Amino acid sequence: MLAYRMTNWGAPPETVTLPDPEPGPGEVLVRVAGCGLCRSDLTMRHLPAAAGEALGWRMPFTLGHETAGWIADTGEAVALVSPASCGTCRWCLRGQDSGCPHGLAGRGYGRDGGLAEYVLVDDRRALLPLGDLDPRHAGPLTDAGATAHHAVRRVLPRLGPGATAVVIGAGGLGAFAIQFLRVLTAAEVIAVDPLPARRSHAETIGAHQSVAELPKRWKVEVVLDFVGTDETITAGVRAVGTGGAYGLIGSAGGRLGGPWFSTLPRDGEVFTFQGSSIADAQDVIALARAGLIRNQVQEFGFGEIDRAYGEMAAGTVAGRAVIVL
Amino acid sequence: MLAYRMTNWGAPPETVTLPDPEPGPGEVLVRVAGCGLCRSDLTMRHLPAAAGEALGWRMPFTLGHETAGWIADTGEAVALVSPASCGTCRWCLRGQDSGCPHGLAGRGYGRDGGLAEYVLVDDRRALLPLGDLDPRHAGPLTDAGATAHHAVRRVLPRLGPGATAVVIGAGGLGAFAIQFLRVLTAAEVIAVDPLPARRSHAETIGAHQSVAELPKRWKVEVVLDFVGTDETITAGVRAVGTGGAYGLIGSAGGRLGGPWFSTLPRDGEVFTFQGSSIADAQDVIALARAGLIRNQVQEFGFGEIDRAYGEMAAGTVAGRAVIVL
Amino acid sequence: MLAYRMTNWGAPPETVTLPDPEPGPGEVLVRVAGCGLCRSDLTMRHLPAAAGEALGWRMPFTLGHETAGWIADTGEAVALVSPASCGTCRWCLRGQDSGCPHGLAGRGYGRDGGLAEYVLVDDRRALLPLGDLDPRHAGPLTDAGATAHHAVRRVLPRLGPGATAVVIGAGGLGAFAIQFLRVLTAAEVIAVDPLPARRSHAETIGAHQSVAELPKRWKVEVVLDFVGTDETITAGVRAVGTGGAYGLIGSAGGRLGGPWFSTLPRDGEVFTFQGSSIADAQDVIALARAGLIRNQVQEFGFGEIDRAYGEMAAGTVAGRAVIVL
Amino acid sequence: MLAYRMTNWGAPPETVTLPDPEPGPGEVLVRVAGCGLCRSDLTMRHLPAAAGEALGWRMPFTLGHETAGWIADTGEAVALVSPASCGTCRWCLRGQDSGCPHGLAGRGYGRDGGLAEYVLVDDRRALLPLGDLDPRHAGPLTDAGATAHHAVRRVLPRLGPGATAVVIGAGGLGAFAIQFLRVLTAAEVIAVDPLPARRSHAETIGAHQSVAELPKRWKVEVVLDFVGTDETITAGVRAVGTGGAYGLIGSAGGRLGGPWFSTLPRDGEVFTFQGSSIADAQDVIALARAGLIRNQVQEFGFGEIDRAYGEMAAGTVAGRAVIVL
Repeated sequence: MLAYRMTNWGAPPETVTLPDPEPGPGEVLVRVAGCGLCRSDLTMRHLPAAAGEALGWRMPFTLGHETAGWIADTGEAVALVSPASCGTCRWCLRGQDSGCPHGLAGRGYGRDGGLAEYVLVDDRRALLPLGDLDPRHAGPLTDAGATAHHAVRRVLPRLGPGATAVVIGAGGLGAFAIQFLRVLTAAEVIAVDPLPARRSHAETIGAHQSVAELPKRWKVEVVLDFVGTDETITAGVRAVGTGGAYGLIGSAGGRLGGPWFSTLPRDGEVFTFQGSSIADAQDVIALARAGLIRNQVQEFGFGEIDRAYGEMAAGTVAGRAVIVL
Repeated sequence: MLAYRMTNWGAPPETVTLPDPEPGPGEVLVRVAGCGLCRSDLTMRHLPAAAGEALGWRMPFTLGHETAGWIADTGEAVALVSPASCGTCRWCLRGQDSGCPHGLAGRGYGRDGGLAEYVLVDDRRALLPLGDLDPRHAGPLTDAGATAHHAVRRVLPRLGPGATAVVIGAGGLGAFAIQFLRVLTAAEVIAVDPLPARRSHAETIGAHQSVAELPKRWKVEVVLDFVGTDETITAGVRAVGTGGAYGLIGSAGGRLGGPWFSTLPRDGEVFTFQGSSIADAQDVIALARAGLIRNQVQEFGFGEIDRAYGEMAAGTVAGRAVIVL
Repeated sequence: MLAYRMTNWGAPPETVTLPDPEPGPGEVLVRVAGCGLCRSDLTMRHLPAAAGEALGWRMPFTLGHETAGWIADTGEAVALVSPASCGTCRWCLRGQDSGCPHGLAGRGYGRDGGLAEYVLVDDRRALLPLGDLDPRHAGPLTDAGATAHHAVRRVLPRLGPGATAVVIGAGGLGAFAIQFLRVLTAAEVIAVDPLPARRSHAETIGAHQSVAELPKRWKVEVVLDFVGTDETITAGVRAVGTGGAYGLIGSAGGRLGGPWFSTLPRDGEVFTFQGSSIADAQDVIALARAGLIRNQVQEFGFGEIDRAYGEMAAGTVAGRAVIVL
Repeated sequence: MLAYRMTNWGAPPETVTLPDPEPGPGEVLVRVAGCGLCRSDLTMRHLPAAAGEALGWRMPFTLGHETAGWIADTGEAVALVSPASCGTCRWCLRGQDSGCPHGLAGRGYGRDGGLAEYVLVDDRRALLPLGDLDPRHAGPLTDAGATAHHAVRRVLPRLGPGATAVVIGAGGLGAFAIQFLRVLTAAEVIAVDPLPARRSHAETIGAHQSVAELPKRWKVEVVLDFVGTDETITAGVRAVGTGGAYGLIGSAGGRLGGPWFSTLPRDGEVFTFQGSSIADAQDVIALARAGLIRNQVQEFGFGEIDRAYGEMAAGTVAGRAVIVL
């Protein structure tokens, strides 16, 4: 089979031909229908060997961590959970598998992912039934969707009637967050994005309002920051009123201007995380199956992977880029 | 009556003679038994008028926000809640009165406090029955105690069996926090303080262990930082493991070294606040009445207020300084 | 002024003429715009003196506990909280004022209520600003609406994506519950009512489905029972799956058929309550002001009170009956 | 090896000789050190085939669901989780594996349990490291201990300072509950048991007070009922004050006297469950390893199993009976 693969630390990925994988005892073979691309794929090309090994990554590995397809034996449509969380540690046993140390590696980052014709799955926890959803497009639900859901789920108790939620960055994850906020709460939802096309899309999918930047005097219950620069952190934290929450999902590496004691929201909370738990992915698929959210994707063929990454980097993809097989 | 009083912005407090207050309709006269001193009293001397007025403070006012005494009419021993929270806003009606904007002023900071023979109370919410507790010493329960309780109460769900809680700064508030952690959880409790006398006291009141500084490799469930410098914030946040909490109570004005996304605890929380809610003070008094916590105080007379503040500033008071009347 | 009033235990209410009330210190005079009627008003006619006195009721009193109007001094439109909760007990100070023992009496049940031209309010907590909402119709938001909200708010954590909520009894409270479930969750909402007109109305206001009775094999996450007979309790509890909640709001006096250990939902919860907290009423008014819920009322004049109660008892009122003044 | 085994529905268990089990791929062989006996073992003798098969039980099976021992390969001391929860359903993935339908069968009830020299474990989630704890005695921690912990963990938020918890039935599970309440809360803990020896033991292990029966006028925050007759349910529910919780763990098959609406605690909760989640067992082992709880057992040899069950049924065992191998 063909696979789009990292073959060496620091080297660009290549398309290679591999033998079709054969499932061993307890393994399930999945024929890939589609696989979403993610900006983090691009950063993997530059990851030093030491850093990758510290995360538990094995080289080589096939890229692609937003995978869906069909169980080869039965034809059932499934989406795949990517993180290789263990299922047995104290995090996994408490429904907090996004905190499992083994989840730092996973399908598409240190293990074979979905940019190939087949994937082997050795953990039944990783198979999420899709029902009637199209597996060519469903991959992003498990990563872009589930990560945004992880953030929104956490702030639900702070979003009672009359509350306002601000989403900074209305790209792939932000667009999911806006939709989750609309279907899971009665809050006013406001998108912040400098790009007019994204603001317009944000309003199409449910934002009550969109602005190019966060006004200085606003005080809201929740800010979810999918960017994470010095500017968005500082503006986002300032906008959180007493008892509110600021969630940092964007990995731009920023920090807060100002002393913590007088700047952080009083009696509120600041949190960050990476990835999501399996329960998030289940919830997102449940919302998609119920027709309550839209998952905007742009299709590319397997031969167009490099072009798709290029368009993603240039910001010209509408929604999430998916490679269909 | 005598009162120790701020008479002008930017000026030192003075002892003055005032007429005994007379309760109007709905007011309750309380004869003061004792009033605790707090470091924040010292900073009030330097507060600019504009800042004080923005907080809703009225000048002049009697100092002292850790007050207890007897209801003049009935002789019942009560401790007084200091913040002038309104009781009617959305915060107060949800048991989150520490978030009420009116609570930025209160008895002893912008309203007449407890360093006087009598105090008038115009809100029944402010009267907390003491039962058999000695009102000469109980004042600190409502502020130093309640503030520490507000922090501990918040982190209880993260302190299941096998968890560890670190308290940075084993002074007045930290000593309360250590005790609350011991009686409300089964967690391992560790005190961090550079002063050997405080470490030793911390162990006396229940800390399982005490260290001069936080070892670099520790990962714990909860850090409560009663200092709040750059150093304690950076070390404290680093010590919080996945899913843990860092609470900032100390007002030293520090900030975090390092970018937020990779430095804040993954799937954890960072929080800060000032003061406490009335429910915290009720809970602290309940613990004290049940004999489960010790409230270490050192007595001074009304004529020794300046000396007591001096000793407090010099760090030579064992526990909380209280002025007994 | 005219007032519709209970004048004696066990006697029917009468319309009487009273002097206009004059506000004392700390009191606010409210001119009534409208007042909703409630089935519980009818049961008060038969309450024995001993039972009423045990609840802290004072005779005589003006009926009507769903009151809204204008503050006489300022003209501001407000709805009135009815329960006379104290604001100072441990329940009130924790945002759980529906548990305050003083709340067993209130405006319209043991204190003067809203079926009169004016009402005196002696507690600022009882005044809820209505903004642009019509005070002639807003009264039911504070009781029928707030009670339904109290139930729905409690079960929100059990209603994640893919969950189902069943509302037994699609009358006044049930109709509010259906709407709250739709705007605050993504759950499937199912109304159960034997009356076709109510089922049809339930679907109009948002129920995904309605049935005449609960099928025996259903297992859902949440059942809210606004009826409370032996039949609805037994069917409702049986329909709750593992980890689900059954909430009893209806006061029909039923009990469960079957032993508890094997019949109650496994790892779920059963709860009941009466009334609501002020925070519920605030939330309901916030939803109404945002245009997210409909409050169906039928108007009657002050001279038509007896006829309105008659229609209410006969079940011919569409929505809530309100007396407009 | 020898095994004490159910060989047929409705027939008494027998000691039989079986070949030593051989671990297949993914399986772990555990040499049993000790196995606790449970009253539910006795009821299994009378379970009709249809009922057992509906639970997913396979006949024959070795009895014993409180097992601990050593991993044969490594010698590591472990306790075994008994329920055969799947690890992949929505319950298991949210840390609520006690709700997993597959958990109705398990090691010792429909699968081979611990009353044998060896047990095969096919799920790493079932192996709980014991550290220095003695595996001959640790089995009851995973069932009697974990079930009691499941109840206590749930009510922790209702047991703030000044609260009271009542434990009805101070036998094996109740004795664990009393200890958990003492180490995890600051609540007053009261044991209710008609047997003087149990009351005395309850006080030895930490109950502040013990009574033969629940006084009629008490109102407390929490009642945990490890008996579950009509009498204890009715008395227990009546004793729960506003906002409190009644938890039913005892399987005696009772029900509540009185209509629900007026009898259940106002704004409180009633709950029941069977078994526990793996997290509970982890937490109990953490408490035992920290020396915070005592696990009272009485040892019997493998040849004394029938005698041990007889003593258990007669109520003459002090603590839990364990068969040591």
